[in-house]
Amino acid sequence: MKNLKKFENLKRENKNLINLDPIQTGGKLTDAAKKVLIEFGDGYSVCDFCPGRLDLIEKPNVKEFIHNILPEFLGADVVRITHGAREGIYIVMHAITKRGETIVVDGNRHYTTILSAERIGLKTIEVSSSGEPEYKINVRDYESLIKQHKPAMIVLTYPDGNYGNLPEAEKLGEIAAEFKVPYLLNGAYAVGRIPISLKKTGADFIIGSGHKSMASSGPIGILGMKKKWEKIILKKSKEYPKKEIELLGCTARGTSIATLMASFLEVSERVKKWPQEVKKAQWFSKELEKLGLEQLGEKPHQHDLMFFRAEPFYEISKKHPKGKFFLYSELKKRGITGIKPGLTKMFKLSTFGIPKEKLEYVLNCFREILKENF
Amino acid sequence: MKNLKKFENLKRENKNLINLDPIQTGGKLTDAAKKVLIEFGDGYSVCDFCPGRLDLIEKPNVKEFIHNILPEFLGADVVRITHGAREGIYIVMHAITKRGETIVVDGNRHYTTILSAERIGLKTIEVSSSGEPEYKINVRDYESLIKQHKPAMIVLTYPDGNYGNLPEAEKLGEIAAEFKVPYLLNGAYAVGRIPISLKKTGADFIIGSGHKSMASSGPIGILGMKKKWEKIILKKSKEYPKKEIELLGCTARGTSIATLMASFLEVSERVKKWPQEVKKAQWFSKELEKLGLEQLGEKPHQHDLMFFRAEPFYEISKKHPKGKFFLYSELKKRGITGIKPGLTKMFKLSTFGIPKEKLEYVLNCFREILKENF
Repeated sequence: MKNLKKFENLKRENKNLINLDPIQTGGKLTDAAKKVLIEFGDGYSVCDFCPGRLDLIEKPNVKEFIHNILPEFLGADVVRITHGAREGIYIVMHAITKRGETIVVDGNRHYTTILSAERIGLKTIEVSSSGEPEYKINVRDYESLIKQHKPAMIVLTYPDGNYGNLPEAEKLGEIAAEFKVPYLLNGAYAVGRIPISLKKTGADFIIGSGHKSMASSGPIGILGMKKKWEKIILKKSKEYPKKEIELLGCTARGTSIATLMASFLEVSERVKKWPQEVKKAQWFSKELEKLGLEQLGEKPHQHDLMFFRAEPFYEISKKHPKGKFFLYSELKKRGITGIKPGLTKMFKLSTFGIPKEKLEYVLNCFREILKENF
Repeated sequence: MKNLKKFENLKRENKNLINLDPIQTGGKLTDAAKKVLIEFGDGYSVCDFCPGRLDLIEKPNVKEFIHNILPEFLGADVVRITHGAREGIYIVMHAITKRGETIVVDGNRHYTTILSAERIGLKTIEVSSSGEPEYKINVRDYESLIKQHKPAMIVLTYPDGNYGNLPEAEKLGEIAAEFKVPYLLNGAYAVGRIPISLKKTGADFIIGSGHKSMASSGPIGILGMKKKWEKIILKKSKEYPKKEIELLGCTARGTSIATLMASFLEVSERVKKWPQEVKKAQWFSKELEKLGLEQLGEKPHQHDLMFFRAEPFYEISKKHPKGKFFLYSELKKRGITGIKPGLTKMFKLSTFGIPKEKLEYVLNCFREILKENF
């Protein structure tokens, strides 16, 4: 076979840049996590002392992490590790719904919510957002749809991955309780960033993402639930009484679980500084708006993930020799990445974990690019 | 939260030992793979230039790897990356069978074959092995069961993970063709060790495991298929026409795919040396039998994964102060690991990729342990 040598020297082109990519700002490894990458790099190396299931391994202490630390962190009774947020959503949907049933989800949901439902054969009813400019989800709108469609479960994305909107999760918890409908909270952009408690929100299930928001090498997710769902979601195999069917036995046994654990001290500390992250995001948004951009989504914004309409950049792209790739290229020249190559008119970005000085530099670069090209 | 500091310094206790663990001998990272661990350690870092699906990323060149290199390597028309072998099995089963249908599998199948079937609600009929001492699967036995049960698909484990037996996969391909029943070959212990071609075997699907047999940091698997299955297995979402439903959009985007690619040159070279691996395994088995152990499974053995009945060690364990943990402890003292702690009477091991000199040392240690304790 030809051309294989190059794969031995894979390099990440956009390394060591200031990275504004919303799917990446919360997934940067801590120094501790970088060390365990090598320690547990070999396939199956976390399984040296496996007693038959990932969450029961005591060396390294995955058991304590999954059975004690994560439940406390999430305010959940029971927690398991999944291959990612989407896989957690699928596990819950698959375990508690049947082909042909209906679910109600928010209109800002991640695309994998739809794919999970399609995979099972569910009908999906969406709670519309308020549309431009805020795209807000009013959780009170679930009520009439629940009455009308008698859904097998409801899903709320908290926040969503487009606008970074934070709907009233607790209020929806009350509605779910009133109508006795199972309620899943997709916190892929919350768990590991925002202090959040399953109990407080009143949800039945909470989903987190290790690679999106918990400083982990992916893919890995966490699934927290109330005790009453344990027997259903974690149903054991008839033939293999230790093995949990929906997890196909074991899930993320590798660098993903090792880095999730190694990063966890820092992650548990950083959620305490969430108010500062919000303040920084709001400041950044205001500064960008001074340049003629418009932040869509909730205002004042409550999350580091933000969506902008950027007419001034779009205007430049029409005349620039590099066309719609000019912004990516101009930013990269200045050591900045994370806005998708080719986007100028609308894009999202995240300020999470980026020091204010660096964001000031980013703002200066935006100003400079506008000035040089107008 | 307490007790988190220790997670920052996770150490692998059994590092740098001679490792005989069958689930680990084929998953040791190559030097090239160790380098990419850091390069692509951050969550979602392979997605810097994602055009909407993992297998379409060109930087790093996942696209070429999945669409050109792996199909050639597997003799398959179409290949996708999964979270592991078990997830690949589930994907195929879920896509082509329906709750209540029947499948026929070999009696030596991995436990996750059963879990996948349970998750979907399939009835599983097993082709019995010949039992002690060889536990052979005669693929001709599928024929009557196919006639009787009209299964939605058949599964063959090649080799199985207990005895390392290699049934006649090609013969089963002929039977599957005759009865027009979809045929999945679980090659978790073959792909990356043994030269193997989907086309040659006549199977419809082939499953591989990155962390078991392709020198990758797990979990990751590969799923190869014939062209005719592409539209069914890789059915696209109605709402998101680029996204493949059964994969929930994207699967292993992280260190797992990066290490799979970086190790691939070495993996593609090592399969050429498979005859030497078999010879080494046969020699090792004979030497162990000289010590009073008995190798179960096919003889002469055709795979590095071997199962032994070890009466002499069992006898020692009855009187030894460390009881059934004595063997693990005695081996570890001598720098050897991989036989499950607590096993003495029956255990499996693998000689894959371990130089003959080291295996000679292992044999000497076995001899010494017997001598010292008898």
